[in-house]
Amino acid sequence: MSEQKIRLRLNRLREKMKEYHCAVCIIPTGDPHQSEYVGEHFALRKYFSGFTGSAGTLAVTEKEALLWTDGRYYVQAERELKGTGIALCRAGAPGEPDIYQWLEEYLKKQDAFGFLDLLEHYSGEEAGLPDPGRDAAGCIAVDGRMISVEMGRRLEECAKKGNMLFLWQMDLAGETAGEQMPPMEHGMIFALDTKYTGMTSGEKLAAIREKMMEEDVDGHLICTLDDIAWITNLRGRDIPCNPVFYSYMYIDMAQCYLFADPECVPEELVKELSEEGITLRPYEQVYETDQYLDEDSLVLVQPDRMNYFLYKKLLSHCNVKDGFQPSEYLKAVKNRTELEHLRETHVRDGAAMTKFLYWIKHTDPETLTEWQAGRRVDELRSRLPGYLSPSFDTISAYGPNAAMMHYRAAEENCAALKKEGLLLVDTGGQFLGGTTDVTRTVALGPVSEEEKRCYTNALRGMLRLQNACFLKGCTGRNVDILARGPLWQQGIDYRCGTGHGVGFCLGVHEGPHSIRWKMPAESREWELEPGMVVTDEPGAYETGRFGIRIENQLTCVLKEENEYGTFMAFEPLTLVPIDLEPVMPELMSREEIGWLNAYHKKVYDSISPYLQEDERRWLAGATKELKP
Amino acid sequence: MSEQKIRLRLNRLREKMKEYHCAVCIIPTGDPHQSEYVGEHFALRKYFSGFTGSAGTLAVTEKEALLWTDGRYYVQAERELKGTGIALCRAGAPGEPDIYQWLEEYLKKQDAFGFLDLLEHYSGEEAGLPDPGRDAAGCIAVDGRMISVEMGRRLEECAKKGNMLFLWQMDLAGETAGEQMPPMEHGMIFALDTKYTGMTSGEKLAAIREKMMEEDVDGHLICTLDDIAWITNLRGRDIPCNPVFYSYMYIDMAQCYLFADPECVPEELVKELSEEGITLRPYEQVYETDQYLDEDSLVLVQPDRMNYFLYKKLLSHCNVKDGFQPSEYLKAVKNRTELEHLRETHVRDGAAMTKFLYWIKHTDPETLTEWQAGRRVDELRSRLPGYLSPSFDTISAYGPNAAMMHYRAAEENCAALKKEGLLLVDTGGQFLGGTTDVTRTVALGPVSEEEKRCYTNALRGMLRLQNACFLKGCTGRNVDILARGPLWQQGIDYRCGTGHGVGFCLGVHEGPHSIRWKMPAESREWELEPGMVVTDEPGAYETGRFGIRIENQLTCVLKEENEYGTFMAFEPLTLVPIDLEPVMPELMSREEIGWLNAYHKKVYDSISPYLQEDERRWLAGATKELKP
Repeated sequence: MSEQKIRLRLNRLREKMKEYHCAVCIIPTGDPHQSEYVGEHFALRKYFSGFTGSAGTLAVTEKEALLWTDGRYYVQAERELKGTGIALCRAGAPGEPDIYQWLEEYLKKQDAFGFLDLLEHYSGEEAGLPDPGRDAAGCIAVDGRMISVEMGRRLEECAKKGNMLFLWQMDLAGETAGEQMPPMEHGMIFALDTKYTGMTSGEKLAAIREKMMEEDVDGHLICTLDDIAWITNLRGRDIPCNPVFYSYMYIDMAQCYLFADPECVPEELVKELSEEGITLRPYEQVYETDQYLDEDSLVLVQPDRMNYFLYKKLLSHCNVKDGFQPSEYLKAVKNRTELEHLRETHVRDGAAMTKFLYWIKHTDPETLTEWQAGRRVDELRSRLPGYLSPSFDTISAYGPNAAMMHYRAAEENCAALKKEGLLLVDTGGQFLGGTTDVTRTVALGPVSEEEKRCYTNALRGMLRLQNACFLKGCTGRNVDILARGPLWQQGIDYRCGTGHGVGFCLGVHEGPHSIRWKMPAESREWELEPGMVVTDEPGAYETGRFGIRIENQLTCVLKEENEYGTFMAFEPLTLVPIDLEPVMPELMSREEIGWLNAYHKKVYDSISPYLQEDERRWLAGATKELKP
Repeated sequence: MSEQKIRLRLNRLREKMKEYHCAVCIIPTGDPHQSEYVGEHFALRKYFSGFTGSAGTLAVTEKEALLWTDGRYYVQAERELKGTGIALCRAGAPGEPDIYQWLEEYLKKQDAFGFLDLLEHYSGEEAGLPDPGRDAAGCIAVDGRMISVEMGRRLEECAKKGNMLFLWQMDLAGETAGEQMPPMEHGMIFALDTKYTGMTSGEKLAAIREKMMEEDVDGHLICTLDDIAWITNLRGRDIPCNPVFYSYMYIDMAQCYLFADPECVPEELVKELSEEGITLRPYEQVYETDQYLDEDSLVLVQPDRMNYFLYKKLLSHCNVKDGFQPSEYLKAVKNRTELEHLRETHVRDGAAMTKFLYWIKHTDPETLTEWQAGRRVDELRSRLPGYLSPSFDTISAYGPNAAMMHYRAAEENCAALKKEGLLLVDTGGQFLGGTTDVTRTVALGPVSEEEKRCYTNALRGMLRLQNACFLKGCTGRNVDILARGPLWQQGIDYRCGTGHGVGFCLGVHEGPHSIRWKMPAESREWELEPGMVVTDEPGAYETGRFGIRIENQLTCVLKEENEYGTFMAFEPLTLVPIDLEPVMPELMSREEIGWLNAYHKKVYDSISPYLQEDERRWLAGATKELKP
């Protein structure tokens, strides 16, 4: 992206802002469904900033532009913003104001605008408009569909304090970009057979309605695409790496409406849905709340899973109860059928990863680039049965690039590999039988003592968590230190969570549980439960030098019930050898070495039938027992 | 205590209850200061139940009596309640209703009483009386001074639901016991020199007023004796094992009133107090709020550190802001002077404990009882400079008795020791230079494989926490699994927290921080901070068989500040050898063995100068390096 282009785009946006007396235009990363991965149609933040990371918020004023992003993206954002005039704000860094703090300060310094023209623009808009007040000084604009209720509330608060209108009903950035954004994807929707899901959508609806009765609500509105895909047992192709389709859903005790593009639903599916009690309606009709909602209904919504625009719409029409979406918890606890498929999928996925590792260890690195290595992984995986797509863009990062947690190598702009140092590969696939996510860091030749020490401590942490035993009632916060401890002892921290939930043929990041030592403010901690799937991915990231991450997917299992309570443990789903070359066994305890050996034995036993003879021989060596 | 006596006492109470149409009389464990250890004058729950544990609540109805106590006391309470007709309710056990749930259910089943007589009794009482309503059926009685605000609120709620009056202004149990309770202790108050405290009371008041300004309050009322002793740098003798004195304190921006028995404060202290800005007033005058409080004052109180009676009094008189007592946090973070004294105190305390261990290892156990062993510890400690008293009743528990976490051996009723098995000794002292609390479990001869395994895993947990390294921002919940992990792996849990704060020449249990994996509902987690003192005491308690606990006191220290944040660690304050006889080194990692050896070296180097030659020689052997 040329810096020139970005500057031009920002200036066009500023012209549009002037029309609306807009002091600050905020462009979040988002779509109307609070999706983590955003389709190109909605990628306005990228369009106006050039920053390609998966998280970030751009704020544009008359003279300035600022982009907030988190620790995973500091390095990448710094590089991508260079020359654009956009200032990088390091979200979460000590002393750095967040966007709300910045906004308040900024608005304090603003002179008043006139606001009469503004009112003209609003005429014709319906209820829910900000009350201009006597002396409002202009407006803060954000497309209300693209932000969460929480963000909307906080921006509203900032606007109020700054004596500004809050304009959330319009999309200034989208109007500026206009035709330059690709149209919204609407791919054909297909069914995921009950042999994979283990539950019919009717059964899932019944489980949700049971929770709704506990909450004493009449209805429940859902925005999030993975929840809707899970409930309906349907999958789509609208967002890269996420087999979901654009939709909303409304459930009450008698009806269930699926708002989706009718052209994308094959006729036989419409019939099948109807048999499960689900009625199809056009996608945009969700905003016509009077068509499906009584005024006296009490509707359950989860504010951080709902777009602000729709929430305001609901508020103006019926009664709203803030709470948790039952489907988020229900889909996190995998059923026996899902777990069986997951185990099988991971064996195949592990075999593909093992083939990749064999290949990279037998190829001269100097003939390869990061991008080529990544493409090889994707190719090997794409040949597997039930494969749909990657579950995220494979990260293939060599040397210092691996210090960027979410680095993305471009074909025409990436590092060449050498016969030394570490290559980090973080990759996964969407399969009919589940979603995979694995990271391995491999030595391409000699590595430094420091790299080995970090690698070994990341490995120790990964093994400690994978082999944890804990009482039911523990959350991810209780166990996080197991993964982080060895690196903390070394004075190193990875500035992100240790692990996240993973969907079943759905989002590679899925709630409600996670493994982290600190929770974001006001977010709830969820107990780990048997059947939950979670990643275990400690790492070490030394800016400008190297990056290491070792990641397995685990599932939580019941271990023992006795007089002290219910003890739980993890079972590794990921079955991929861990490179022994950078391991310093002298840093590991006998117990840790035992865990590594046992894991490697399981990997070999499970994977080897799917390998060719030379690969199998190599795997036998790569998983050989370490001596304490 | 004879069961007969208990039954008689309960029946006399029931007569009193009848007079007041009292359906349920609740007798908590407490004094008006929310003290953990309660002076004999207030020990009504013990008087009416015979149960001697430090925590429990008795509920008496016309026909029943029930006692709630927690996991530490299940075994002891079962024994002590036998024959009294009082039913034991296991607080915290799955499916067991708590007192509020029980009360609601019980009241549902009650017939209506008349209430006219009751109103007569109330005549002459002032504002704050329950509104009898039209159809109140009787009352629930509890002495409002003896319960926390939280408990009062919940009982009030139960009474309301059950259509009962809530009678908190009278003390039915106290009136019944009458002269049989010993009078309230009022010992002479003395000053703790600034050379120990490191801060004058004037400086402490300034720090508190700074927090009060942040909270935007006019005044602050304190009930808790350890906070008042800390603020005033005074100590007393009113509660066994706690060098505190009965008092209240009110602080506003101009004045500070200490409500205490003037006869107990030497004249020169009154003068010194006044120089620090503290005015002495009679103890009971705290209830005359109009004497020191303006009606429009906003007063900060911490509801769970305030008695319900005084809280109601405040509410009827001025504005109240619920919050945290600044002194609770301020006193938890020990200053440099306190830490220096603590280190020195622990060296002497450790030497006394070592002398005890030498003695017990060189005495024929069959000539001793638990009580004699405990007395020996107390004697040895009492000879140390600056000694005031034990910091709690020494627990000396042999074999199966040690499974009772808070067992207390009586001289005339305790176990004889044998040449086998484990003796658990949990003991501590109050010194001018700080408060100690240490537990060691020692083998008196052969011990079983299972005992050894539990002992070794408790030790591993103790060492893992003691040697933890963690980022600032961690609370006790983040690190608890380090101590608990090895026992959890074995399928064993100790049903209590891992550690508690410790006062400086004050309560042996002190907040606000703690180390536990689960927090009590609605309690706040506090970050660990440099200077905080905390115990580290994992254990294994196998009912009817054995009990093990290994406890060190730690202080939190700054380890390293770097780009990742502030790393912290613990320094052990306790310096007492850990019995190696029951250790199974083959269960320990090299790292753990290294930690044990380093700790033992520190113990030997610090303690040996204070020992006699034969003791020193023994210590050298008892702290010898273990080989991995």
